Amino acid sequence: MLLLTLYIIGITAEAMTGALSAGRKQMDTFGVIIIACVTALGGGSVRDVLLGSYPLTWVAHPEYMVITSVAAVVTIAIAPVFRYLRKLFLMLDAVGLVTFAIIATQKTLDLGHGIIIASIMAVVTGVFGGVLRDILCNDVPLVFRKEIYGSIALMVALLYHSLTTLLHVPMDYAVIITLVAGVLVRIAAIGFKLDMPQFKYNSPEH
Amino acid sequence: MLLLTLYIIGITAEAMTGALSAGRKQMDTFGVIIIACVTALGGGSVRDVLLGSYPLTWVAHPEYMVITSVAAVVTIAIAPVFRYLRKLFLMLDAVGLVTFAIIATQKTLDLGHGIIIASIMAVVTGVFGGVLRDILCNDVPLVFRKEIYGSIALMVALLYHSLTTLLHVPMDYAVIITLVAGVLVRIAAIGFKLDMPQFKYNSPEH
Amino acid sequence: MLLLTLYIIGITAEAMTGALSAGRKQMDTFGVIIIACVTALGGGSVRDVLLGSYPLTWVAHPEYMVITSVAAVVTIAIAPVFRYLRKLFLMLDAVGLVTFAIIATQKTLDLGHGIIIASIMAVVTGVFGGVLRDILCNDVPLVFRKEIYGSIALMVALLYHSLTTLLHVPMDYAVIITLVAGVLVRIAAIGFKLDMPQFKYNSPEH
Repeated sequence: MLLLTLYIIGITAEAMTGALSAGRKQMDTFGVIIIACVTALGGGSVRDVLLGSYPLTWVAHPEYMVITSVAAVVTIAIAPVFRYLRKLFLMLDAVGLVTFAIIATQKTLDLGHGIIIASIMAVVTGVFGGVLRDILCNDVPLVFRKEIYGSIALMVALLYHSLTTLLHVPMDYAVIITLVAGVLVRIAAIGFKLDMPQFKYNSPEH
Repeated sequence: MLLLTLYIIGITAEAMTGALSAGRKQMDTFGVIIIACVTALGGGSVRDVLLGSYPLTWVAHPEYMVITSVAAVVTIAIAPVFRYLRKLFLMLDAVGLVTFAIIATQKTLDLGHGIIIASIMAVVTGVFGGVLRDILCNDVPLVFRKEIYGSIALMVALLYHSLTTLLHVPMDYAVIITLVAGVLVRIAAIGFKLDMPQFKYNSPEH
Repeated sequence: MLLLTLYIIGITAEAMTGALSAGRKQMDTFGVIIIACVTALGGGSVRDVLLGSYPLTWVAHPEYMVITSVAAVVTIAIAPVFRYLRKLFLMLDAVGLVTFAIIATQKTLDLGHGIIIASIMAVVTGVFGGVLRDILCNDVPLVFRKEIYGSIALMVALLYHSLTTLLHVPMDYAVIITLVAGVLVRIAAIGFKLDMPQFKYNSPEH
């Protein structure tokens, strides 16, 4: 199935970016594997815990945890190669983000919730893997810097919902249209350095 | 209903303090909204996840998430005004804390747990919204500095439980008595700079 | 029962190490108690939330929360004594780690999951109490430095599973064998300064 293939590409790519983050902090092998798994599977886990949707995806499918662990070890083995794959990884990262958001939207709607909760869950799934990675690496969390992630996840949820529910586009076509649109917006955001307006507040604390 | 009105005042005030924290970190609009929602609704979410009480409040009532998001956007729009509202906000913040603690106590007791667990859930609800905000903003968590929060939440749980269960005071009166008592203690704590004794331990790590 | 006795020793020891961490950050009494409880009971809580296994251990048994709170207060009272108990605490900490991992393995298998998920839950239970403590104390999380924790938890899960499921060793004997093996490995790891190889990656961020 298309969405499953995209999902496995997505978690592999996210696991590899997580492993590289851990490598920047000079973690040992075990820490690298933990960070890789949390980055790839953490967003979906937070979503399922918030929804009370058990079992979690990777508890029902331990093979996803095996895939992300292997991806972490492979990353350690071939780390120098990643310097030359920067553009490929930005692309795979965008594919992962859009795929995670589509799956989250579909799953939340299937559970009987409305589009507001489905949109929130798309954002949670797209953003919180990276947020957990940054908290565990003691970096300033992603929400600071790559906020466009959240905006794209929100756009994906609304577009996918409109296509499937309002326009009755068949699911596979809806996935492809949403995927192309989401990845293009992500690339445009990088190319044009699109950012949302910042809110600066300098008053001392209340 | 009284408690619902107080709750909505509370989450609005907490969302606004969250948005100001995000503004101090110069987050963009999306980050500000996320931090505002987490600050206002995070404590109750942690409580419900720990209790396994699904659906979470804001999943059942997405309008609460809309209220906190709107509060975040309004805060950005009228930020300079907040400099002159410091005392009002300390008051609203105290109302929110006491209200969250009362609701947590009542909900936990309704689920069939005893007063120990209800008190813990009052503390979790009162404290963890701010803790999650500080973790996402990479600040030193609140538990360091505003520990009196936890003590007040504990006091609220015990007072409210005594009034309703032991003295059979009708719920609305119990809410008002607990609210007045809790807010007064909070104001007294600020006025007299009340703090609990610190524990200092300087030995190198075990 | 043997495992229950070991568990209570374990949470008491972990609560005390949590309280000392909080003391190093000069938290007040309430903060010390919160950090102690999170350190001792947080790993198991994360495990149960991930498994959707409700009620959480300490919600069903509030007395465990009382024990860890009392341990925190006792730690504040007799803090200077801890300087002379360093070796005893390393030993109790190892006992706690191995016990938590055994309980997590058994509980996860009892819920019908396989050995992969049981091993992951042993690692989560052994590691995440300390990770949550470090996040709340704003330290660099444990996974950086004491990664051997995760490896030992994994080893414990596999050894205990082999003994009980494959070799049909009675549970109490399996607990004792696993405990002795796990504690010896931990002591050896400290004595010989065993560490897993680090992964260093210096490329600028993708």
